[in-house]
Amino acid sequence: MAGLTHLDASGAARMVDVGGKAETTRSATARGRIAMRPETLAAIRDGDLPKGDVLAAARIAGIMAAKKTGDLIPLCHPLALDAVTIDFAFRDDGLDVTARASLTGRTGVEMEALTAACTALLTIYDMAKAVQKDMTIEHVRLIEKTGGKSGDWRYDDRARG
Amino acid sequence: MAGLTHLDASGAARMVDVGGKAETTRSATARGRIAMRPETLAAIRDGDLPKGDVLAAARIAGIMAAKKTGDLIPLCHPLALDAVTIDFAFRDDGLDVTARASLTGRTGVEMEALTAACTALLTIYDMAKAVQKDMTIEHVRLIEKTGGKSGDWRYDDRARG
Amino acid sequence: MAGLTHLDASGAARMVDVGGKAETTRSATARGRIAMRPETLAAIRDGDLPKGDVLAAARIAGIMAAKKTGDLIPLCHPLALDAVTIDFAFRDDGLDVTARASLTGRTGVEMEALTAACTALLTIYDMAKAVQKDMTIEHVRLIEKTGGKSGDWRYDDRARG
Amino acid sequence: MAGLTHLDASGAARMVDVGGKAETTRSATARGRIAMRPETLAAIRDGDLPKGDVLAAARIAGIMAAKKTGDLIPLCHPLALDAVTIDFAFRDDGLDVTARASLTGRTGVEMEALTAACTALLTIYDMAKAVQKDMTIEHVRLIEKTGGKSGDWRYDDRARG
Amino acid sequence: MAGLTHLDASGAARMVDVGGKAETTRSATARGRIAMRPETLAAIRDGDLPKGDVLAAARIAGIMAAKKTGDLIPLCHPLALDAVTIDFAFRDDGLDVTARASLTGRTGVEMEALTAACTALLTIYDMAKAVQKDMTIEHVRLIEKTGGKSGDWRYDDRARG
Amino acid sequence: MAGLTHLDASGAARMVDVGGKAETTRSATARGRIAMRPETLAAIRDGDLPKGDVLAAARIAGIMAAKKTGDLIPLCHPLALDAVTIDFAFRDDGLDVTARASLTGRTGVEMEALTAACTALLTIYDMAKAVQKDMTIEHVRLIEKTGGKSGDWRYDDRARG
Repeated sequence: MAGLTHLDASGAARMVDVGGKAETTRSATARGRIAMRPETLAAIRDGDLPKGDVLAAARIAGIMAAKKTGDLIPLCHPLALDAVTIDFAFRDDGLDVTARASLTGRTGVEMEALTAACTALLTIYDMAKAVQKDMTIEHVRLIEKTGGKSGDWRYDDRARG
Repeated sequence: MAGLTHLDASGAARMVDVGGKAETTRSATARGRIAMRPETLAAIRDGDLPKGDVLAAARIAGIMAAKKTGDLIPLCHPLALDAVTIDFAFRDDGLDVTARASLTGRTGVEMEALTAACTALLTIYDMAKAVQKDMTIEHVRLIEKTGGKSGDWRYDDRARG
Repeated sequence: MAGLTHLDASGAARMVDVGGKAETTRSATARGRIAMRPETLAAIRDGDLPKGDVLAAARIAGIMAAKKTGDLIPLCHPLALDAVTIDFAFRDDGLDVTARASLTGRTGVEMEALTAACTALLTIYDMAKAVQKDMTIEHVRLIEKTGGKSGDWRYDDRARG
Repeated sequence: MAGLTHLDASGAARMVDVGGKAETTRSATARGRIAMRPETLAAIRDGDLPKGDVLAAARIAGIMAAKKTGDLIPLCHPLALDAVTIDFAFRDDGLDVTARASLTGRTGVEMEALTAACTALLTIYDMAKAVQKDMTIEHVRLIEKTGGKSGDWRYDDRARG
Repeated sequence: MAGLTHLDASGAARMVDVGGKAETTRSATARGRIAMRPETLAAIRDGDLPKGDVLAAARIAGIMAAKKTGDLIPLCHPLALDAVTIDFAFRDDGLDVTARASLTGRTGVEMEALTAACTALLTIYDMAKAVQKDMTIEHVRLIEKTGGKSGDWRYDDRARG
Repeated sequence: MAGLTHLDASGAARMVDVGGKAETTRSATARGRIAMRPETLAAIRDGDLPKGDVLAAARIAGIMAAKKTGDLIPLCHPLALDAVTIDFAFRDDGLDVTARASLTGRTGVEMEALTAACTALLTIYDMAKAVQKDMTIEHVRLIEKTGGKSGDWRYDDRARG
């Protein structure tokens, strides 16, 4: 089925068997941006000063979503994550969210990092949507993965921009 | 707090009180794209022929995620959705996912539509990542909402495109 | 699509729109049996005397599963159930489980009653499987439904036995 | 308590301690049938041609339910499954669903296979119930298990069939 | 059964039928304290200055737990909450957590307020347990409820203090 | 950040990395009391005689909540618990709940034991609140932990009692 490992020979979906894989240390980092107007960004930044609740809520939401990945993405394995972190960076036109997950296990954590990043971005949208409805989530991608049989991998920004 | 309705006067997060709002019919539509190489797209399209499991899995994942929105996004109200649909459109450089949610209730379903779209996109990533790791999720936005006190709203492609 | 309301005209799955339906009182009753050897039945019955934990656990599991139905069955609507009850009846060759659910809402609760019954039966299997592995779950069916546009309905035992 | 390992000496429910068990490869296969009229079966079969969504939805629901088993069945351990597959076979009077789960761990996956099978069967019921309400779920049983201290086991069709 | 409404005449657990109740506005407030040493309190207070993440995490956890109440407490109805807020007050010997929930519906939200308070308290314990393991959760109680057939009610501190 | 391991150097919340820790056998025991009037206690005790459903429901709720700890407490790791038990003791002025959890893994199970105890206590409140609304949850604390790098620990009743 052209390399789509989640489909069997007949095209039916399946949870890929990882039973024969070795338990190794694996990590993955994902990143995306939520684009917004400067005044929306200012509202979040100001809201962030006294209590930190906008980014704090997005960070908690991202971490909790990483733990729910196997419950959201149908063919993902349930994983006992070792660690999850979420970081934010203010840009002129929005906020970058970077999520990193790691585990000692039989399969990679790319989906956990991507799910955490998307959920943190969606939470920012939710908390600022009364100010601006046309914020957009842009360029969510896997930045890097380490460990596992396929080894380390890094996103090539020149190739895809 | 500059219009961030999810923060109270001291900046603390809260679930906004919708008790005084009227129960009306509301809907929201969200859309986003997963960009990929033509050969990845072809693998999904071919995989789709015999059993339809790639897009079927992404559709089911998106619908189920819409129902979990209140469990994922910290300050979203739990909602009794009336309907959810997920549609796909093949583009030259990827797949467009459109999610639509509706309910009869006291608050809007924008987050349900956006969460459904993101989860369907993440599921496609998951099922094709053995073929291409640098697929990216692009331009996820609210396309349209109807109903509620703030009335109808539509994304203006010329403004942000 | 031959009356399969969960598929649209193209065969794609969808959550059926119940927005136009009236809120009425609806109920559904489902029943099934777990067949087992007399000595397994006796172990459950005896275990039931001092603390009641076998059937109590199955009852709680069934009630909680009714509330999770929308999270388990992809196209079910999330529902605010009014009531759920689970009853047991000892037979010569096993245990009958009857689950009843009701709500005031826009769609029926057949799936909630069936899911509650199946989960209670599975819980009994789990708690007795150390004694007998070849217990079987038999003849799980909808016994009755009331309310809604399609009106009342009752399973005809003569037709299918 | 007559071999009911989920009850302690006083009859109280408990999650059995598996801490002392060895991590071994374990698998379990469960099977059940949903009985229906030929025209219902034809509607599912026809619905299956263009998009495959009926069986695809049931397959995804079964796989996701296997991952939720510890959340549904009170005394089941939460397990990091290695693999789950769901297969369908058309019979004259209905559809057979076979679910197989495996893991490398300290306890068996019988309940995961049975829960996956039941949930796939319930999903088929849900998607076809507009056509036929008196479909019944029949003869759900453990077909086979491998691994663990109690070793391999296979259902004997002659004994109970 | 002596007024225990969650048990039927035979002593079996059930989800009480609220179908005949009117939809009214209801609220509930719960409060509890986590007692700790002054230096632990100081660590939380200091940690709270730059980013607010300790109390922000506890607040988000409490709000999200209110939405999960029906999933945690076996016989609670699943509820579409209108609002949830969590407030903190520093005391000499610990932190007071006050949770308030409200809805327009057929049953009260006492359990939602209590579950939110307990979960926020547990989250504070989790985040500070590396500093002090013998923190204790004290005097969690319902402070007030409004609405519903039984009317308004307020905790009498003199009676039980 | 003064020993608060769940905050990084900038005060941001994170899930602590346990990847470098050894897999060892760990256990934790937590205890708390629900205080009530003698007649409420009598109602529970009497309700307990025929079917055992009050304490049985609380026991099941506590065991299931232990498995959900990572889903409730934001920075807790998802854990594959080996065992959970819940015990009750009748006192003159209420009921003591003791929860014990254990696992073979990289991090402790203190939060699992505390979450199980709190949820069992909340379930008792829920089931008896029609009789007495001013029951209170008192003195929930970690009684003991074993295993892990920090070794064994026991609550000192004289110090804080």
